[in-house]
Amino acid sequence: MDNLELARQLHEKNDSKIVLLVADGLGGLPVKPGGPTELEAAKTPHLDALARNGVLGNSIPILPGITPGSGPGHLSLFGYDPLKYIIGRGVLESVGIGFELTARDVAARGNFCTLDDRGNILDRRAGRIPTEESAPLAGKLAEITLPGVDIFVEPVREHRFVLVLRGDGLGSRLPDTDPQATGVPPLEPTASDAASEGTAKLVKEFVRQAQEVLKDQSRANGVTLRGFASLPEIPQFKDVFGLRAAAIAVYPMYKGLASLVGMDIVGQAQSLSEEIDIMKEAWSDYDFFFVHFKYTDSTGEDGAFDKKVERIEEFDAIIPGVTALDPTVLIVTGDHSTPCLLKSHSWHPVPTLLAGPYCRPDRAGTFGEDAALMGGLGHFEGKYLMLLAMAHAGRLGKFGA
Amino acid sequence: MDNLELARQLHEKNDSKIVLLVADGLGGLPVKPGGPTELEAAKTPHLDALARNGVLGNSIPILPGITPGSGPGHLSLFGYDPLKYIIGRGVLESVGIGFELTARDVAARGNFCTLDDRGNILDRRAGRIPTEESAPLAGKLAEITLPGVDIFVEPVREHRFVLVLRGDGLGSRLPDTDPQATGVPPLEPTASDAASEGTAKLVKEFVRQAQEVLKDQSRANGVTLRGFASLPEIPQFKDVFGLRAAAIAVYPMYKGLASLVGMDIVGQAQSLSEEIDIMKEAWSDYDFFFVHFKYTDSTGEDGAFDKKVERIEEFDAIIPGVTALDPTVLIVTGDHSTPCLLKSHSWHPVPTLLAGPYCRPDRAGTFGEDAALMGGLGHFEGKYLMLLAMAHAGRLGKFGA
Repeated sequence: MDNLELARQLHEKNDSKIVLLVADGLGGLPVKPGGPTELEAAKTPHLDALARNGVLGNSIPILPGITPGSGPGHLSLFGYDPLKYIIGRGVLESVGIGFELTARDVAARGNFCTLDDRGNILDRRAGRIPTEESAPLAGKLAEITLPGVDIFVEPVREHRFVLVLRGDGLGSRLPDTDPQATGVPPLEPTASDAASEGTAKLVKEFVRQAQEVLKDQSRANGVTLRGFASLPEIPQFKDVFGLRAAAIAVYPMYKGLASLVGMDIVGQAQSLSEEIDIMKEAWSDYDFFFVHFKYTDSTGEDGAFDKKVERIEEFDAIIPGVTALDPTVLIVTGDHSTPCLLKSHSWHPVPTLLAGPYCRPDRAGTFGEDAALMGGLGHFEGKYLMLLAMAHAGRLGKFGA
Repeated sequence: MDNLELARQLHEKNDSKIVLLVADGLGGLPVKPGGPTELEAAKTPHLDALARNGVLGNSIPILPGITPGSGPGHLSLFGYDPLKYIIGRGVLESVGIGFELTARDVAARGNFCTLDDRGNILDRRAGRIPTEESAPLAGKLAEITLPGVDIFVEPVREHRFVLVLRGDGLGSRLPDTDPQATGVPPLEPTASDAASEGTAKLVKEFVRQAQEVLKDQSRANGVTLRGFASLPEIPQFKDVFGLRAAAIAVYPMYKGLASLVGMDIVGQAQSLSEEIDIMKEAWSDYDFFFVHFKYTDSTGEDGAFDKKVERIEEFDAIIPGVTALDPTVLIVTGDHSTPCLLKSHSWHPVPTLLAGPYCRPDRAGTFGEDAALMGGLGHFEGKYLMLLAMAHAGRLGKFGA
């Protein structure tokens, strides 16, 4: 019996509201010895106030030392063991653009690329061709026909598109055709298992026809395909936790992740303040709100310490709008750390704050990495955060007599 | 390989003594902001002295956020993964009244209920009929005979009794007959698997005869049955840890839980001081002593902060009697928290103290929830506590070369 099965058996219903605020890539590192992290440098009076009354801890998204991508980082926050529920890239990209995958689909991320006369890759991203140019090309590729399957080619952004094959008995065990290098041709589509051999043949034929369709293009005259995947079988949030869950995000990726576990995607926010407005409007319709804030991660990836600090302060500023709704349990965390020092996601634990009834006092009086080490939640695996949220909301019964 | 298998392979024997003192429901919460928990409010000079020399930590009985019942809470302390070794309700109830189950038994919790003229349930608990009235009725039901099996009906308290069928080839996969509602009849006994079909027929016949026996009762004129279960297959403490283990408790439930893992039930203590006397008498006969103290939990369930504080002080007062025996390793913990604020078991970690040789110093100078956050054991799953006890007692060899 695992944490999801426990939640499925023990969850109870009441009128409580749980809010999960995810500041993407929240955790950081000092950029000089003795200095503060981004979160510690930021002035966060509202988060600090929550920290004084709530309980802090360090969330380990996957395992100690493991740097998560956005997919597993979020699955963990949603309560799913990210080492058990694996979501392929092709699936992530599809759900991220609102494409509704079925159980008969195999999806892949596609890149337009630039090939030279000999078929070697000159530019893996076709000069980051603008979406206005690439979308019509995706439309042309969508006209390709293959025997026995339906085919979908959906534009994403710039050089990126999604390829979906729909049919019976398709396999998804195909290695990427992107060689991750220039001066060499795209790799031939192949199968890693017997069940995927037919699919590899179909993909090979798709690539052949795509090259033909694109041959007169100056930049986008080739394609590569990555992350072949099918929909994972994943227990639905509603069944596991008994929560009517709303996901509020600006970027397709995070909406897609939430929809995979069965959350409703609510609103079309373009900013954090719009996200909070949408939550407010939907307040009575849902028990659980996942709200995603992207820019703590992107500024971390840029290595822009001061900008990440600003983004954290922007994030802090919306807290009163959230607490005004009087959620029973308010959690503030990230899906992983993105220290400016590293300009990338990292394995460091994520400072996590839980405010709600029945928090046992700890010595964390501000919200930050150092304070989190004094926190009453200790170090914990991210996948258990939902159990804590449910417990504090009075939504989990006793295990055993 | 799990912790039990490690212990089975690595355990060694020596003359050490391990004492596990369990103050039931030990952990708590402040009842007012900024105030102490029950354990922090209590004057515990002896426990504090142990804390200064020993090491503290926070035990998580099951998983973060999960509130344990007594069964899983104790199994965890005994080293058993409570999510793997599940004790059915019927077994727990039998164990709770000191009924010795055998491998041929199927046990269920019974309720006397009140039925109307049409056989619908008026009161699921027969007006909480007093034990003086219900016990003789259980005696009458015990006279029912069924073909090929022995039958036991044991009074518990008020409207509750235990039903045990003893025979060959019985199955225990029967859903509850309690519909958890009034205005409807009890559910028919049925089987959830083929192996339980014969048992379901026997239970159906038992219910028919019981209704006949009870038909002239004004309140207790019906029965419902819940939590059908057989003894779990559980590795024996002696084999896993190589310890001769004694369990000393006042209440049948805790003796029963200890006997499930193969501990010897020693003495018939009626108080904590008698428990310590019994441990003293049995000191040379055993390597391991589990001593259970109930009243920290019951005062917590009553929400009686001052009384729980008193009970903790009473518990502290017996510590010199324990240390006088010079145990190699002395552990003080609880099976779960029972904060007066909640008047129930809770999910909060349990402050845990280990005193013995080779404790690495930590900053915990008293025994309490706040101090435990400074403790060298950090947060740990309760099922690992026995490994720590064994290690400090010099009873665990090296894993691998």
